[in-house]
Amino acid sequence: MDNVGLIGMASVIVAGLTIAIGSIGPALGEGRAVAQALSSIAQQPDEANTITRTLFVGLAMVESTAIYCFVVTMILIFGNPFWNYVVAQAGR
Amino acid sequence: MDNVGLIGMASVIVAGLTIAIGSIGPALGEGRAVAQALSSIAQQPDEANTITRTLFVGLAMVESTAIYCFVVTMILIFGNPFWNYVVAQAGR
Amino acid sequence: MDNVGLIGMASVIVAGLTIAIGSIGPALGEGRAVAQALSSIAQQPDEANTITRTLFVGLAMVESTAIYCFVVTMILIFGNPFWNYVVAQAGR
Amino acid sequence: MDNVGLIGMASVIVAGLTIAIGSIGPALGEGRAVAQALSSIAQQPDEANTITRTLFVGLAMVESTAIYCFVVTMILIFGNPFWNYVVAQAGR
Amino acid sequence: MDNVGLIGMASVIVAGLTIAIGSIGPALGEGRAVAQALSSIAQQPDEANTITRTLFVGLAMVESTAIYCFVVTMILIFGNPFWNYVVAQAGR
Amino acid sequence: MDNVGLIGMASVIVAGLTIAIGSIGPALGEGRAVAQALSSIAQQPDEANTITRTLFVGLAMVESTAIYCFVVTMILIFGNPFWNYVVAQAGR
Amino acid sequence: MDNVGLIGMASVIVAGLTIAIGSIGPALGEGRAVAQALSSIAQQPDEANTITRTLFVGLAMVESTAIYCFVVTMILIFGNPFWNYVVAQAGR
Amino acid sequence: MDNVGLIGMASVIVAGLTIAIGSIGPALGEGRAVAQALSSIAQQPDEANTITRTLFVGLAMVESTAIYCFVVTMILIFGNPFWNYVVAQAGR
Amino acid sequence: MDNVGLIGMASVIVAGLTIAIGSIGPALGEGRAVAQALSSIAQQPDEANTITRTLFVGLAMVESTAIYCFVVTMILIFGNPFWNYVVAQAGR
Amino acid sequence: MDNVGLIGMASVIVAGLTIAIGSIGPALGEGRAVAQALSSIAQQPDEANTITRTLFVGLAMVESTAIYCFVVTMILIFGNPFWNYVVAQAGR
Amino acid sequence: MDNVGLIGMASVIVAGLTIAIGSIGPALGEGRAVAQALSSIAQQPDEANTITRTLFVGLAMVESTAIYCFVVTMILIFGNPFWNYVVAQAGR
Amino acid sequence: MDNVGLIGMASVIVAGLTIAIGSIGPALGEGRAVAQALSSIAQQPDEANTITRTLFVGLAMVESTAIYCFVVTMILIFGNPFWNYVVAQAGR
Amino acid sequence: MDNVGLIGMASVIVAGLTIAIGSIGPALGEGRAVAQALSSIAQQPDEANTITRTLFVGLAMVESTAIYCFVVTMILIFGNPFWNYVVAQAGR
Amino acid sequence: MDNVGLIGMASVIVAGLTIAIGSIGPALGEGRAVAQALSSIAQQPDEANTITRTLFVGLAMVESTAIYCFVVTMILIFGNPFWNYVVAQAGR
Repeated sequence: MDNVGLIGMASVIVAGLTIAIGSIGPALGEGRAVAQALSSIAQQPDEANTITRTLFVGLAMVESTAIYCFVVTMILIFGNPFWNYVVAQAGR
Repeated sequence: MDNVGLIGMASVIVAGLTIAIGSIGPALGEGRAVAQALSSIAQQPDEANTITRTLFVGLAMVESTAIYCFVVTMILIFGNPFWNYVVAQAGR
Repeated sequence: MDNVGLIGMASVIVAGLTIAIGSIGPALGEGRAVAQALSSIAQQPDEANTITRTLFVGLAMVESTAIYCFVVTMILIFGNPFWNYVVAQAGR
Repeated sequence: MDNVGLIGMASVIVAGLTIAIGSIGPALGEGRAVAQALSSIAQQPDEANTITRTLFVGLAMVESTAIYCFVVTMILIFGNPFWNYVVAQAGR
Repeated sequence: MDNVGLIGMASVIVAGLTIAIGSIGPALGEGRAVAQALSSIAQQPDEANTITRTLFVGLAMVESTAIYCFVVTMILIFGNPFWNYVVAQAGR
Repeated sequence: MDNVGLIGMASVIVAGLTIAIGSIGPALGEGRAVAQALSSIAQQPDEANTITRTLFVGLAMVESTAIYCFVVTMILIFGNPFWNYVVAQAGR
Repeated sequence: MDNVGLIGMASVIVAGLTIAIGSIGPALGEGRAVAQALSSIAQQPDEANTITRTLFVGLAMVESTAIYCFVVTMILIFGNPFWNYVVAQAGR
Repeated sequence: MDNVGLIGMASVIVAGLTIAIGSIGPALGEGRAVAQALSSIAQQPDEANTITRTLFVGLAMVESTAIYCFVVTMILIFGNPFWNYVVAQAGR
Repeated sequence: MDNVGLIGMASVIVAGLTIAIGSIGPALGEGRAVAQALSSIAQQPDEANTITRTLFVGLAMVESTAIYCFVVTMILIFGNPFWNYVVAQAGR
Repeated sequence: MDNVGLIGMASVIVAGLTIAIGSIGPALGEGRAVAQALSSIAQQPDEANTITRTLFVGLAMVESTAIYCFVVTMILIFGNPFWNYVVAQAGR
Repeated sequence: MDNVGLIGMASVIVAGLTIAIGSIGPALGEGRAVAQALSSIAQQPDEANTITRTLFVGLAMVESTAIYCFVVTMILIFGNPFWNYVVAQAGR
Repeated sequence: MDNVGLIGMASVIVAGLTIAIGSIGPALGEGRAVAQALSSIAQQPDEANTITRTLFVGLAMVESTAIYCFVVTMILIFGNPFWNYVVAQAGR
Repeated sequence: MDNVGLIGMASVIVAGLTIAIGSIGPALGEGRAVAQALSSIAQQPDEANTITRTLFVGLAMVESTAIYCFVVTMILIFGNPFWNYVVAQAGR
Repeated sequence: MDNVGLIGMASVIVAGLTIAIGSIGPALGEGRAVAQALSSIAQQPDEANTITRTLFVGLAMVESTAIYCFVVTMILIFGNPFWNYVVAQAGR
């Protein structure tokens, strides 16, 4: 269990947990927003355009937090500076 | 328990937990959105088309967070760069 | 406790937990959607067809997250690349 | 505590927990759906047939996630490939 | 603490926890369904027959998840293949 | 800490926890059903007989999950096959 | 820390936890039932007899799960077969 | 850390936790029942006698679970058979 | 870390936790009862006497569970039979 | 890490946790009672005196559980019999 | 890791946690009381004085539990008798 | 890992957790108060001044618990008496 | 496991958890705000501009807490002063 | 694992967790306040100015608790006195 194994293991574990935990909040938040949008359209069909447009802007904001998690996951898997360092050290 | 065993074990554990934890949020969020859609259709049958269309766009957004988790799970099982490295090292 | 035992044990544990945890969200979400569908049919019997159709599409979306978990469970039990590798190593 | 004991113990533990945890979600979801069905029948007795039919389709969907867990439990007890391998190794 | 003790201990622990955890969901779900049935009968006494019949079908579905847990518990106590194997090994 | 102590300790611990955890769900579920029954009788006194009869059937269903736990507890204390085996082994 | 100490300690710990955990569910369930009974009497004073009678039957059912826990606690303290065995062994 | 210390420590810890955990459920349940009683008296002052009498019977039932915990706590502190045995052994 | 230190440490820890955990339930239950009493007085000022009297009886019942915890805490600090025994042993 | 350090450390830890955990319940309970009192005054200003008086009695009851915790904390810090004993022993 | 380090570390950890945990309850309770006060003023502006006065008395009661925690924190940091003792011992 | 490292590490950990945990309660409590204030202004615009003034006093009370945590955090980082002592000891 | 491995591993783990945990709150808070905005537009279409503008300002405030977490994550991955120090030390 | 590694690791872990945990409360609180503001504007459009102004003051108060956490995080990363001390010691 040298540094390569240690940092590799930590990267694998964290990469998965980051996107897994990070998908709970956005999924619930988006589900709530979508549900309310459908309710609002049923209540005020004439404003369907305004409602849909506001919904999409809001979903984009909420989705952005999921995107942050996905970006960090990808960095940890494919562009991990700590892994690169210890592999370079081990390869020397 | 060398690096191969360590990183392999971590990959197995995280692959399963990622999709398992990552399916809770989307499933609850989609269930909520679908439930509200059915309620809205019952309340305003004339807008069923608009409601259904908005529902599907919203479900796609929510499902996207589950897809992120599934993609990361597949990468961890079949395209895991950490596993590839330690296997290559062990095979040398 | 060599690599074979370690990765085998991890695979067994994760296979079960993946489908167990992964069934909570979809079951609750589907239960909610079905309950609302029944309520909507009682409220607007004339739209029973539209409601039932939307319900089934929604259930399919929610069920998809359970399917992801089941697929990963099956891969971990019957097509586990980490297990195959360590067994091949042990058999050498 | 060789591989036989390790993987056997893990299989026993996971088999029980899989069906135990996996029964919480479906039981709650089905309870909710059944409760709403009874409420809907009381509210709209003339639609009892449609409601009952939709209820049974929905219960089948929810029950399916419990079935997944039960199948995995049975595989882990009676058709466990990891156990078969280590027993075959130990018997050699 | 040889394999006999290890697997025996795991079987005892899991047998109890399986039925204990597995009884929470069904008990709550059935309680909810029964409560709603009583409320529906009070609201629509003329449909008491339909409500009671639907209730019993629903309770059977919910009870089935408790039955799964009980079956697995009984298998783990009285027909445990892992225990049989290690006892046979120890008796040799 | 030989096998006798190990399996005895596990049996004691699990016997208590099984009935303790297993009593939470039924107690809450029955409490809910009884509460609703009282509310329904107050609302529709003429149906007190039907309500009481349905309540008792429902309580029996819910109580059955508590009975399962009690049965498993009694088996673990007085008819525990794992304990019998290790005691027989120790007595040899 | 021989078998006497081990099983004695486990019995003490489990005896207390069994009745402690086992009192949460019944207390909450009975509190709910009593509260609803009072509300029903206030709403329909003429049915006070029926309500009170149904309440007492229901409380007896809920209390039964607490009784199970108390019985198991008493068995673990005063009639514990595992303790009797190890004491008999130690006394030999 | 011989058997005397071990069982003494376990008895102290469990005695406190039993009454501490065991007081949560009854306190909440009684609080709910009392609150509802006050609300019912305000709603139907003419039935104050019936309500108060039913309340006291209900409180006695709920309090009984707290009494069970208190009795077990007292047994563990002052009449603990496991402690008596190990002290007798140590005094020999 | 002889028996004196062990049992002393356990007594200190448990004494504090007993009253700390044991104060959560009564405080919440009493807060609920008081809140409802105030609401009932505002709704039915003419019954303020009956309400206040019932409130005080109820508060006494709820407070009793807190008193149990306080009594056990005091016993553990000032009249602890386990501590007395080990101190007597150590002083010999 | 002799007895002085052990019991001192335990006393410090428990003193803080006792008052910290013990302040959650009373604070929430009092907040609820005060909130309801304000609502009742707004609803029935003529009864402000009765409401305020009942509120103060109730707050005193709830505060008493916080006082118990504070008293135990002070005893543990400044009048701890276990600490006094081990210090006296160490000073000998 | 002698007694100085041990008790110093425990004091630092507990000092922070005491005030951190102890601020949750009061903050939530005060937020609730303030929110209800604002609602009551909006509903009954003529009683603003009585409401504000009762609010401040109530806030003082709730704040008192936070003050207890702060006092204990300060004692643990600046007037800790356990720390003083071990420092005096170490300085000898 | 001497006393300097131990107490330094504990101080770093606790300083962060104190303000992190301590910000949850005030943030939620203030959010609730502000939300209710906005609702009250919308309901009774003429009382905006009284409402705003009471809101600010209430926010100051709630914020005070966050301030306590911040003060303790700053003391732990910049004026920590335990750290000063062990550094002085180490520097000797 | 020297300092390089230790601090690298900690940085990887914390970088992922920071953004994962930090995305839960903002996602839920934004989902709530967006849902209410849609409801308000449906209720008062003429104020859609004011509502949308206030919504965006509020979303920016909520998003700011997610941004803080993202910034800290990026600092920990790409500008970590602790990592730079230990790498510089190791390279010497 | 000397003091440099220990305190560095603790600083990295705490820096991330502080801002991550510390963002949950403010994000939820701000989301609630913003949601209520939108609802109030829809209800009383004429008071939009007062509502928006009060909202911004309230958001600033809530945001302040997030700022505290961010400040502590920055101090722990870039101005950590414990790290500076141990680095200075190690550099000597």
